[in-house]
Amino acid sequence: MTTPEFADGTAAVGTSLDSLPLREELRGKSAYGAPQLEVANQLNTNENPYSPSQELIDDLVATVAKLAPELNRYPERDSVELREALADYVTRQTGVTVTRDNLWAANGSNEVLQQLLQAFGGPGRTALGFQPSYSMHPILSAGTQTEFINCPRGADFRIDTDAALAAIAEHAPDVIFVTTPNNPTGDVTSLADIEKIIAATEGIVIVDEAYAEFSPSPSAVTLLEKYPAKLVVSRTMSKAFDFAGGRLGYFVAAPAFIEAVMLVRLPYHLSMLSQAAAIVALRHSEDTLATVQKLSEERERVAARLDELGYSRVPSESNFIFFGDFRDQHAAWEAFLERDVLIRDVGVAGHLRTTIGLPVENDAFLAAAAEVKALNL
Amino acid sequence: MTTPEFADGTAAVGTSLDSLPLREELRGKSAYGAPQLEVANQLNTNENPYSPSQELIDDLVATVAKLAPELNRYPERDSVELREALADYVTRQTGVTVTRDNLWAANGSNEVLQQLLQAFGGPGRTALGFQPSYSMHPILSAGTQTEFINCPRGADFRIDTDAALAAIAEHAPDVIFVTTPNNPTGDVTSLADIEKIIAATEGIVIVDEAYAEFSPSPSAVTLLEKYPAKLVVSRTMSKAFDFAGGRLGYFVAAPAFIEAVMLVRLPYHLSMLSQAAAIVALRHSEDTLATVQKLSEERERVAARLDELGYSRVPSESNFIFFGDFRDQHAAWEAFLERDVLIRDVGVAGHLRTTIGLPVENDAFLAAAAEVKALNL
Repeated sequence: MTTPEFADGTAAVGTSLDSLPLREELRGKSAYGAPQLEVANQLNTNENPYSPSQELIDDLVATVAKLAPELNRYPERDSVELREALADYVTRQTGVTVTRDNLWAANGSNEVLQQLLQAFGGPGRTALGFQPSYSMHPILSAGTQTEFINCPRGADFRIDTDAALAAIAEHAPDVIFVTTPNNPTGDVTSLADIEKIIAATEGIVIVDEAYAEFSPSPSAVTLLEKYPAKLVVSRTMSKAFDFAGGRLGYFVAAPAFIEAVMLVRLPYHLSMLSQAAAIVALRHSEDTLATVQKLSEERERVAARLDELGYSRVPSESNFIFFGDFRDQHAAWEAFLERDVLIRDVGVAGHLRTTIGLPVENDAFLAAAAEVKALNL
Repeated sequence: MTTPEFADGTAAVGTSLDSLPLREELRGKSAYGAPQLEVANQLNTNENPYSPSQELIDDLVATVAKLAPELNRYPERDSVELREALADYVTRQTGVTVTRDNLWAANGSNEVLQQLLQAFGGPGRTALGFQPSYSMHPILSAGTQTEFINCPRGADFRIDTDAALAAIAEHAPDVIFVTTPNNPTGDVTSLADIEKIIAATEGIVIVDEAYAEFSPSPSAVTLLEKYPAKLVVSRTMSKAFDFAGGRLGYFVAAPAFIEAVMLVRLPYHLSMLSQAAAIVALRHSEDTLATVQKLSEERERVAARLDELGYSRVPSESNFIFFGDFRDQHAAWEAFLERDVLIRDVGVAGHLRTTIGLPVENDAFLAAAAEVKALNL
């Protein structure tokens, strides 16, 4: 066998992306993702700033020790035990009795949404969303060859229901995304408005409730019994659940939707460790979700101070605040970064998004916000 | 908030898959996957039968204990440390020096292959394979809307190189799959034949080496320097590495291919636990891979006994054997199952596949094989 110096070899390294037979629509694109920078105050990805409890960590370590001898075996393919644990949690959190047959889980809500688009979107089909919203919705649509149609939010960043109904009538979308509380703005779409959207479409409606636990408003899970053939509610353990590193997203829907995604899911998509760690996290949900109350209180404190400083903002029921107005929001983002505060420029003119962190991080953000205000950027 | 009895409610449960606006091509399909049955001798999914070493388990538990306090944070998105560990391993195993820039990892080789098809296949493009081979290749093609073209293997289950070159000339495929050692047959395609296939195509060639460690034949990684713009070698930690439960697949290629899949990968697709557990497994690769030698020896023992019993078989350089001939292979599969031996009916007339397990499991398989032979099924 030869030993070519491939790592240093000019032939291999010299092959450019442009020279590969990449799909045309991907040419010139860049990979999605917020900058992963090392900054003292990381308030850019809506993570929960509290570490898991020691009880959760001890339980996880004991669970891994027990399971590890079986790592040579494939995981249970349908994640039945995890889906039961999720069903118990959703039942408690929403007041709607659901079972494992109503639950589906994957590696983050991105994979859940990708599977739904593979089954209900795809070539020749369309997805409608209300931007600015979760920026992965159009990206996942593109990745599954689903045409994404944007019905822009109003000047107040809320869904304009009349415009929404008109867009549905015009485009007859196969899939509709409603994010509530919306990311990056934090506002909630009422169940009454969601019902109007469901009634207007022949397609399916995915209500993305990634931030549901931070909101006192009722979940769209309460509408599932009424619209079993049209409604899917997607959620994640990344935010309220303190589990961004574990990558666990799920959806709640009529059992037929679970049957549908099983036709497109990759077999054994959820590792033994992912399933087990999520079950452990759900076992400690009461401890973990106690942090939600603290973060909601901090959100109100940060909001009040932003008002005092003269910023505008969208009323938020989430763990972040969308605020402005800036003449140049990217210059403002950099001014925050210079002050060791990493927040998010989501590309909406005049506005930035800050995650609610620990009190000390929020203090750092607010101190920076006062200084940045004076810069008049 | 209402509390509808959704779990028992007729409305939700009564919605059938047929009533959902599923994509037409998915209607009537069933989900992929081998039966997950509880049988004494599980020889159906090509798992490594040896549990991880206690040293590996202790290391994993300590690693999880150390990382768990950070589970509230998103994982490192580009898996740099894991890709470095994989590069070190591939360099040692193949004799070809590669770096992290040549490596990409995802949740099982299925996700790796799906990403490659999203970038290089897709609507209006084609993938060519040589069936019977890994049954996920056509399924992943369908899932990414890539038209799959089969160029059937010869009567000896080997790739017919002349037929392959003719099919490439006729169809001009965008992606070609070569599985070596091939699953389910175990035979190896020579590097010389792979070079002929590469030379004949304008598309990319994915050499699927899921079972490479079981074969003494040289890896296609040794060809990467020569064909940097056309060749990708995919691999998995599920088989030789004892890590099916951890779900870790990877590919080795010129850095431009890594840039390409980063345009379609889901952000944060690999959890913190998946990355960490794979790094631990790689740290103990010498211990783990010691099982490969034992399994290869067992393969030769099982093969010799099958010959004595009068079965036909394909020469295997993998951890399984493809054997026959049966008049009704499904009846024979059931006869094995009745004898507490779960093997695999991959749907090839007259043939079944058995995984090489522990000596005691192989003994049980061979005892059943003797009895089944007498049934003349």
